[in-house]
Amino acid sequence: MKGKYLPDINCPDDVKAIPEEELSLLAEEIREELISTVSKTGGHLASNLGVVELTIALHRVFSSPEDKIIWDVSHQSYTHKLFTGRGKKFNTLRQPDGISGFSRRKESEHDIFSGGHSSVALSAAYGIAAANKLDGNKNYVVAVIGDGAFTGGMVYEALNNAGRAGTGTKLIVVLNDNEMSISPNVGSLARYFAQMKATPRYVRFKSHTEKVLTHIPLIGKPLVKGIYNTKTFIKNIIYNSTMFEDLGFRYMGPVDGHNISMLTSALEGAKEVDSPVVLHINTVKGKGYEYAEKAPDAFHGISAFDLNSGEPVFSEPSFSDAFGKYLVSAAEKDSRICAITAAMSLGCGLEEFKARFENRFYDVGIAEQHAVTFAAGLARGGMLPVFAVYSSFLQRAYDQIIHDCAMQGLKIVFGIDRAGFVGADGESHHGVFDAAFINTIPDITVFAPTTFKELELAFNKALYGCDGPVAVRYPRGVDIELPYDFNSSFGDFDIYGDSSEKIAIVTYGRCFGEACKALKMLKEKNINAFIVKLNTIKPVSNLAVKEVLHCEKVFFFEEGQRFGGIGETFGDKLFKFDYNGVYRNIAVEGEFPMQNTVKGLMKHYYLDGEGIFTKISEECEKNG
Amino acid sequence: MKGKYLPDINCPDDVKAIPEEELSLLAEEIREELISTVSKTGGHLASNLGVVELTIALHRVFSSPEDKIIWDVSHQSYTHKLFTGRGKKFNTLRQPDGISGFSRRKESEHDIFSGGHSSVALSAAYGIAAANKLDGNKNYVVAVIGDGAFTGGMVYEALNNAGRAGTGTKLIVVLNDNEMSISPNVGSLARYFAQMKATPRYVRFKSHTEKVLTHIPLIGKPLVKGIYNTKTFIKNIIYNSTMFEDLGFRYMGPVDGHNISMLTSALEGAKEVDSPVVLHINTVKGKGYEYAEKAPDAFHGISAFDLNSGEPVFSEPSFSDAFGKYLVSAAEKDSRICAITAAMSLGCGLEEFKARFENRFYDVGIAEQHAVTFAAGLARGGMLPVFAVYSSFLQRAYDQIIHDCAMQGLKIVFGIDRAGFVGADGESHHGVFDAAFINTIPDITVFAPTTFKELELAFNKALYGCDGPVAVRYPRGVDIELPYDFNSSFGDFDIYGDSSEKIAIVTYGRCFGEACKALKMLKEKNINAFIVKLNTIKPVSNLAVKEVLHCEKVFFFEEGQRFGGIGETFGDKLFKFDYNGVYRNIAVEGEFPMQNTVKGLMKHYYLDGEGIFTKISEECEKNG
Repeated sequence: MKGKYLPDINCPDDVKAIPEEELSLLAEEIREELISTVSKTGGHLASNLGVVELTIALHRVFSSPEDKIIWDVSHQSYTHKLFTGRGKKFNTLRQPDGISGFSRRKESEHDIFSGGHSSVALSAAYGIAAANKLDGNKNYVVAVIGDGAFTGGMVYEALNNAGRAGTGTKLIVVLNDNEMSISPNVGSLARYFAQMKATPRYVRFKSHTEKVLTHIPLIGKPLVKGIYNTKTFIKNIIYNSTMFEDLGFRYMGPVDGHNISMLTSALEGAKEVDSPVVLHINTVKGKGYEYAEKAPDAFHGISAFDLNSGEPVFSEPSFSDAFGKYLVSAAEKDSRICAITAAMSLGCGLEEFKARFENRFYDVGIAEQHAVTFAAGLARGGMLPVFAVYSSFLQRAYDQIIHDCAMQGLKIVFGIDRAGFVGADGESHHGVFDAAFINTIPDITVFAPTTFKELELAFNKALYGCDGPVAVRYPRGVDIELPYDFNSSFGDFDIYGDSSEKIAIVTYGRCFGEACKALKMLKEKNINAFIVKLNTIKPVSNLAVKEVLHCEKVFFFEEGQRFGGIGETFGDKLFKFDYNGVYRNIAVEGEFPMQNTVKGLMKHYYLDGEGIFTKISEECEKNG
Repeated sequence: MKGKYLPDINCPDDVKAIPEEELSLLAEEIREELISTVSKTGGHLASNLGVVELTIALHRVFSSPEDKIIWDVSHQSYTHKLFTGRGKKFNTLRQPDGISGFSRRKESEHDIFSGGHSSVALSAAYGIAAANKLDGNKNYVVAVIGDGAFTGGMVYEALNNAGRAGTGTKLIVVLNDNEMSISPNVGSLARYFAQMKATPRYVRFKSHTEKVLTHIPLIGKPLVKGIYNTKTFIKNIIYNSTMFEDLGFRYMGPVDGHNISMLTSALEGAKEVDSPVVLHINTVKGKGYEYAEKAPDAFHGISAFDLNSGEPVFSEPSFSDAFGKYLVSAAEKDSRICAITAAMSLGCGLEEFKARFENRFYDVGIAEQHAVTFAAGLARGGMLPVFAVYSSFLQRAYDQIIHDCAMQGLKIVFGIDRAGFVGADGESHHGVFDAAFINTIPDITVFAPTTFKELELAFNKALYGCDGPVAVRYPRGVDIELPYDFNSSFGDFDIYGDSSEKIAIVTYGRCFGEACKALKMLKEKNINAFIVKLNTIKPVSNLAVKEVLHCEKVFFFEEGQRFGGIGETFGDKLFKFDYNGVYRNIAVEGEFPMQNTVKGLMKHYYLDGEGIFTKISEECEKNG
């Protein structure tokens, strides 16, 4: 870490001690540190560059951790980490055993609420503020929420609830408007925020303006009468943010989010309001790094990149790319195909679809619940909707999958991206729940391809080969090479090896590649096994189960939660068919996998070739 | 069915054929039918009495099923059912094999989208409208949504997305404002709607008023300049519904929802708008039935009642009552205890808590997502929050339980009411998922009491005997009588009977009472078994599993989904401990249980005494 000030900052008080006129130098030092670190570790760059000044102002105006600053999603909390004792290890960002790319309660008392998912900060913040009020605790709770997160419905649930909290509730919402939700497809809220920004003003004007207005007799006395309630009328003239005001919040802004002294006085002003307040600030994503300012989407979440060119160090087609390519080719032939994304067009590989089939492409914002039910509506209207979504974010639509897809019997296709371990994003982002939670839902089919080729076969089957809702799940990563003698037509399952052997490995998805490696290693140790590769993981095929009933030992390897997972269902079916050998189910043992490389996690959970080999050979030695 | 018109209505055209001046007579006949039927079958009365005129107007203005009417939740669709071929069987409402109390696609082509859960109709409706637009289909899609449902965030996700749909999108939202969300605790939205209603006007006035306003030179020329964008200003004077307008919808209303001719012309007006429109109507819950008008909450969802007195036919304390009583006594001793409900205060037994501890009671609206994360915030602030919620509705907070409770390691207590079959409300409402979906989540404990006494023990343990998030699940129904020789201190599990026997029944919750009956029946047939009653169903105790390892046959009975359920986890543990006998897992076999009495469903799934007896004795006969 370099600079005049940054290296010596160990706690918020150190930030407060820096002379005001030196703060822009501090901001520069921070930006250099952010850009240089993220270029090596990957991470969220653009959003962090956008809140440097805000973070400085917050830590000068408030006293963390007594005052509680909650970062929504918390991908933008890097500067906060630099200020709260984590500067020295900032180079371990997102590395195994390093500091997290999100807020983590275990990491610091200044990380108030662990983050990762969007639109939850206000609910948590209001909870804390309500507890403070009950306790007579006068400290502040500040929630920093991006405009993108405001496309998530949970924010409105919280606004509606908190808006009546009334006086004594020390709750400040910073609406960080970096125009993330502005995209021709993302919805009307962005337009609304833009309208607000067209008329900047200050909360300090308020009392003055109010006085002036009530003394102008001409304000529509004849006009307002019978048409408009005078108070509301005046309020609408002073603030154009009726949405927040009508939901019971005080509104201030918009304020230039890169002007530290303006931010500071606005935050000081917000502290003086004795009820919930929204402070609207404007920031520029990627501020201070040319490449990021020009392409904030690409620099939102990014892998390691070259500092000077802004180009990624590593670039090989991912499963998301393969999916996107397939969907474009399918949509060329079938005009019923629509693509839906919840603000993850780039991440899910949908950019080409978006460009080619604009009228059939729907970016609904960070709104997975709506995305699923909207897709159900499209299906009800005769379309063939495909919702591409990260596994971890689909968790938010569990009820909608049950109630609005499965219960309706409608054909909606889910492209579940980032299924399995995701690596550096850590515990909030691993796709280790989808197989298990979809397992609990009736009348839905789930396919788990292992390669790009299988991904195409799976989607083809999903679109044209089965009824009702159907999901295809695929990992974060690049194509996998399978043994030359393995060929799949992607039926419900495949057998690899001699199925008359007495040891069976059952698995699916990415693990199959690892199982193939293990099979070879086992053979070298004279342990003969074969593999049942499940292509359809829900429902589990009875025929697949029957393939292993003659075995002495059956091992299930699952890159996902054990409890409620496919391995448990497979075991239950073994009992159903009176299998009486050994069954071992190896999976994530009811815990949140930590941040690590995907490779490191596969190893940790005995799901890589070596791990599969170890588990099986140990069991064989134990039982002779 | 009685009356001059109602008995002859078989389809919407029959409604259209009735002379306008006779429509109020028709409305009267409908109300009589609704009151008389629901007094026998139970169901949603107040909301249906509120939309009689609306339903008449809708079916006269639109052509169902080409025009698609989607009822949010659809508990208010009884009159719609009477108009669409289901009058003759209306007496079977909510009965086994009868017609559903909600929209059901299988029941009629006029039931566009199966319902039951709140706040989803706009997402589905916009999906259909978007499909229509792609198809060049000019029919309308109408979503009828109550003001209560507007406290659910999904509606905003849909508004934000649909608000940019633009011209050619034939989408009409009827906001049925019956002041359901008005309660001092329910939030600021209600206040906002009330404000709108203070200034009734008509869309037909619009063009006229607009013209008038733009010609008055005095409208703040000096005032507006630099303060307010003139267009927005005028818009705000004409409509006070800036929220809807700002989200891209056209706003009309409010209109008297009991005046058929006004409703009809408002709907005709809405049809002429070529982009998404919100029509705000005022209705009175329970309209036309004195008792229901006076106590709309009690008559929202009601059991059979006496027509003349309005009193329920049957009234015995439920598990909800027992929970409410316990929580009041706990809150008397512990000032940290807070109660949270998502608009289900009455149903969850929280009325006394609400009255006694107003400042610690939070009704957050129909907002389960926010409820969970808000509870997490309260816990983070040092409180002891208890969120009481119906099992089926908790599905909506799956991600929040993972991300904002379990991942934070915070102590939040869930009171999961209506866990298991609920009876007449049918497929959308059975609590058959919670055990399975919570099973997939790390670091959370789940208790399943069988009696009122155990419920108290369970909550006591939840509040003071364990760390992290914890759930107590209990059924819809009254207390259960257990054998006199069974006594539980509510440890992780109990044994009933002689545990050296070779046949074990494993179960939990309500099923335990049935298992006790079966045990007796089996004994009479010389089949000796014992019962392992799980009190903690997550994690499944290894000691409980070890109690049955010596058995020849183990049977698990679960009032919930088989796939991902506790029975599968128990089986997986049996394998882990090398059990080598028979294991049979009896549960809901991956389907949506239909509407039926609880008793009927227990029987259907072999979960009553007789069914448990049958399953075990059949297995014993089979294997000798």
